[in-house]
Amino acid sequence: MRIGVLGTGVVGQTLSGKLASLGHETMIGTRNVEAALARTTAEMPGEQPFGPWHHEYPDILVGTFGEAAAHGEVVINGTRGAVSMVVLELAGAENLDGKILIDVANPLDFSQGMPPSLTVSNSDSLGEQIQRTYPGARVVKTLNMVGAPVQVAPAQVGDGDHTLFVAGNDGDAKDAVANYLREWFGWREIVDLGDITNARAMEMYLALWIRLLMAGGPMFNIKVVR
Amino acid sequence: MRIGVLGTGVVGQTLSGKLASLGHETMIGTRNVEAALARTTAEMPGEQPFGPWHHEYPDILVGTFGEAAAHGEVVINGTRGAVSMVVLELAGAENLDGKILIDVANPLDFSQGMPPSLTVSNSDSLGEQIQRTYPGARVVKTLNMVGAPVQVAPAQVGDGDHTLFVAGNDGDAKDAVANYLREWFGWREIVDLGDITNARAMEMYLALWIRLLMAGGPMFNIKVVR
Repeated sequence: MRIGVLGTGVVGQTLSGKLASLGHETMIGTRNVEAALARTTAEMPGEQPFGPWHHEYPDILVGTFGEAAAHGEVVINGTRGAVSMVVLELAGAENLDGKILIDVANPLDFSQGMPPSLTVSNSDSLGEQIQRTYPGARVVKTLNMVGAPVQVAPAQVGDGDHTLFVAGNDGDAKDAVANYLREWFGWREIVDLGDITNARAMEMYLALWIRLLMAGGPMFNIKVVR
Repeated sequence: MRIGVLGTGVVGQTLSGKLASLGHETMIGTRNVEAALARTTAEMPGEQPFGPWHHEYPDILVGTFGEAAAHGEVVINGTRGAVSMVVLELAGAENLDGKILIDVANPLDFSQGMPPSLTVSNSDSLGEQIQRTYPGARVVKTLNMVGAPVQVAPAQVGDGDHTLFVAGNDGDAKDAVANYLREWFGWREIVDLGDITNARAMEMYLALWIRLLMAGGPMFNIKVVR
């Protein structure tokens, strides 16, 4: 499948690396292709400098945000939440129209240090902002509640016995994404919370996730026990 | 032990009922004792009308908020978060000074219907407001992330194999509360998130909790899987 992954950070790297290893025609999108490939320092903890990283994944195409979105039959928003709306504008509504847009981003505000707060929460969410702004896109919020290494390898945490959530307005798109998550990464327990307003709950959970991350690293998730 | 429980709703009823059954000298606090005992209709889903409920628990003392707080060696804030600050003012700082104050409340705003939003979140929390306003109290936030029936009987969900969180500035108070939670209710896995600012994470989780409640009822919790 042709997949466009927006963002060259740890989430974009991890998702596109895994998808390419599965044989998908993956294009990773960035603002400035030459500048990204010339980058030799990492921007955030957990990611590799993009230039050396791409040497390890020569099959992954690198394009602008618009080119990556146009390339993808499915588009993944793997950018930092603080820049997601700008990135999607650069990606272009015409390149998202009718497509499944998997929104993995969290609107974290690191300006006051750790732990971050959220730039939007409680009565709105980034997932809703994206769906409102791109009504032609079929937005499915998911994967944002686990760290990048868990996103692509849930079995590495507790033998995969934990819960992933999805939310979105388009039931067929959610079903398709749930199937992708099972096939691509091996997710087993996937809970559909309902429409895209449930992105509020999924993003507000990050306050707890961040504190658990700070206490014990990224290799964890929660399981809903009934 | 003498325990003061503030609030006559489902949380106050459930906690004080269980504590009294364990033999603790429990006083439940309300705004107006006579009016509470005369109440024959429930105010929120899941609670019993207070008058008939108290007939089932004649050993439980009923007092004003101030009397219940004065009575308790330990005080539990089991009120609705939207009224907690008013209730604590009625309870009186002098009746909280030096005491462990277990804060179970969530600042839920039901004014726009279901699901509620939070009246305070992201850069502050009810737990912090309480600790700031009553610096002499030893505030420990806990139990707010599970429904009342789970609070007192964690083994009824997944054989008790799930996670409870605590947060607060006073390490000795948190240790004491963790021991109470083990002894009183049988909690096993208790994670200390850190100081009271972590109440933000614990309260913001309610957005997810509410949606899971609406989907499948209150008998659930999350387990942190590493």
